[in-house]
Amino acid sequence: MQTIFVELGERRYPIYIGLNLFDQLAELIGELAGKQIAVITNPTVAGLYGELVSRSLNAYDVDCFEMPDGEAYKNLDTYGALMDFLMSRRHNRSTCLVALGGGVVGDLTGFAAATFQRGVDFVQIPTTLLAQVDSSVGGKTAVNHAAGKNMIGAFYQPKSVIVSTDVLATLPARQYAAGLAEVVKYGIIDDPSLFEYMVENVDAINRRDNGVLSKLIARSCEIKAKVVAADERETGLRAMLNFGHTFGHAIEKISGYGKLLHGEAVAIGMLMATRLSEHQFNLSADLYARIETLLNKLNLPTMLPEPCDSKDMLLAMGMDKKAVDGQIRFVLARAMGDVVVMSDFSERALMATLEEFCKP
Amino acid sequence: MQTIFVELGERRYPIYIGLNLFDQLAELIGELAGKQIAVITNPTVAGLYGELVSRSLNAYDVDCFEMPDGEAYKNLDTYGALMDFLMSRRHNRSTCLVALGGGVVGDLTGFAAATFQRGVDFVQIPTTLLAQVDSSVGGKTAVNHAAGKNMIGAFYQPKSVIVSTDVLATLPARQYAAGLAEVVKYGIIDDPSLFEYMVENVDAINRRDNGVLSKLIARSCEIKAKVVAADERETGLRAMLNFGHTFGHAIEKISGYGKLLHGEAVAIGMLMATRLSEHQFNLSADLYARIETLLNKLNLPTMLPEPCDSKDMLLAMGMDKKAVDGQIRFVLARAMGDVVVMSDFSERALMATLEEFCKP
Repeated sequence: MQTIFVELGERRYPIYIGLNLFDQLAELIGELAGKQIAVITNPTVAGLYGELVSRSLNAYDVDCFEMPDGEAYKNLDTYGALMDFLMSRRHNRSTCLVALGGGVVGDLTGFAAATFQRGVDFVQIPTTLLAQVDSSVGGKTAVNHAAGKNMIGAFYQPKSVIVSTDVLATLPARQYAAGLAEVVKYGIIDDPSLFEYMVENVDAINRRDNGVLSKLIARSCEIKAKVVAADERETGLRAMLNFGHTFGHAIEKISGYGKLLHGEAVAIGMLMATRLSEHQFNLSADLYARIETLLNKLNLPTMLPEPCDSKDMLLAMGMDKKAVDGQIRFVLARAMGDVVVMSDFSERALMATLEEFCKP
Repeated sequence: MQTIFVELGERRYPIYIGLNLFDQLAELIGELAGKQIAVITNPTVAGLYGELVSRSLNAYDVDCFEMPDGEAYKNLDTYGALMDFLMSRRHNRSTCLVALGGGVVGDLTGFAAATFQRGVDFVQIPTTLLAQVDSSVGGKTAVNHAAGKNMIGAFYQPKSVIVSTDVLATLPARQYAAGLAEVVKYGIIDDPSLFEYMVENVDAINRRDNGVLSKLIARSCEIKAKVVAADERETGLRAMLNFGHTFGHAIEKISGYGKLLHGEAVAIGMLMATRLSEHQFNLSADLYARIETLLNKLNLPTMLPEPCDSKDMLLAMGMDKKAVDGQIRFVLARAMGDVVVMSDFSERALMATLEEFCKP
């Protein structure tokens, strides 16, 4: 087992990465303020791991809340239902919420933990690759609003993150690939050697080799932990983690939430951001080609599933909450491992990029 | 104008106390990240001060959200409606929410600010005495759940608190008296001279003399600011601010929310806490008599409006979120200005207190 710390002073916490960690949850979670735990999960994950997790936590009074699966349920209604559940089971300030699932479960549970009785402990047990390398680390919690993703939320750090890599064996292929998109992102924004390692180990990655996977997850968590420690509330540096995400969120929005997985939209979004970077910085087409080739080999989409109106995408980006006073900001790549956050990009470059991708 | 600071490091903020401050709101609020402001208020306050406030902020794009008046509307439904409003008016991360009203408006607005797009600026402009001396200071934000008050919320500090004492002239008598209950509380928990000052100036207080009121408000804010700075998240010391509140919340609950004002319930709760203290510490009846006399002169209730079952009150206290693992904690007074937080009080003393107050 490896342990990586997110260095946030008194809110410092560990990320445990290893095999079969569900057998030692009580030990890993450590001392809690009270005796109650609420595990928040969905029917799929509950069917696979619910019993194992409950058994591992049998020293506590464990209640289990199952929410429907899917981004569409990461909203205030489900949040309200969870609050009702916690109140009806008489959970108090010393309870601990455990998020057992992917990003949807983790984001909603984190927001519930941030706000139930003005904040209780919570632990992330991510069961998708995307959640393991990205959403479970860093304390961004949220639910969606009909008018935009993650519009309601809080910065609230977990007590710990427990990444049991064996659970990836049961992950559907599309979800697995979607998680890899975020690992590719870490390579592009911060670590050329991680990108190269992925290129060289594509086959092992695709057959979900545990050794290779552990390395990818640990390196991703290290990079995320470093960035979050430097800029917890995204006032600057942390924005680099949004590489491909401004486009990605717009793609998710206009194609209808749930059609593309987040990671799939980010894959396309990263290519759009790279093309925009090419125009902006007069780069050769080499960077784009390398990224496109790797995404293809990892079974990720590299173009929009359907043509769309580039104006719709522009509008969808205008409502992105990363927009500052109506201005759109992009994370652009100058080279592999070297990105910059820009709001004064060339509008012509943006329009050319949108034209290319929206009407293929 | 007086300025008191709540010393919370990088979250340090000023409380401005003075006459006719609504004329200089833009100046007092200071520089904002963006151009948008959303004023959250209720129809009563909007009718009295809405125009004045909007005019004072005319350098900004001001949207106004009116929520229904009363504790019953401090819930997730109103919160959801406010989120819808902010999204529909395209407010973004650099917006500023302004709470113009009493504790209900302030608590809900604060929670909205804590969670809209993971946190935006907000300013408290309290228009009731209770909000001016208590709820607008210290960053406790929340909405109610059907099963308990303030069960959903966050610790989130405002950017500033602007207390314009002239607005108290339009406050209904009951609400005014309810606010005074919290000032009496500050005297009991921390400042015998404040308590004495109130005793000596009862007539001036009751005719709302501006000079006397300014002193009461400033001293109350000083005490609250000191306690909050020492223990922002109520892990210890801050609990002393709950003197009279464990009983008070139970009284509000069993008499039905909205029947008694919060400050009225706290007045009765303080007497119950004092009686419990008497039993616990073998005090003379003098402390109780002094508090009862002052509350009477300030037109505050000193007994329950209707008899009730003491078991119901016990149950109502068991669900108080200050309860630690089913244990009830009380703030008890050993003398004027000297309180202590206790969970190992005598159960017999508690039962005797409940019997006395519940069946009069």
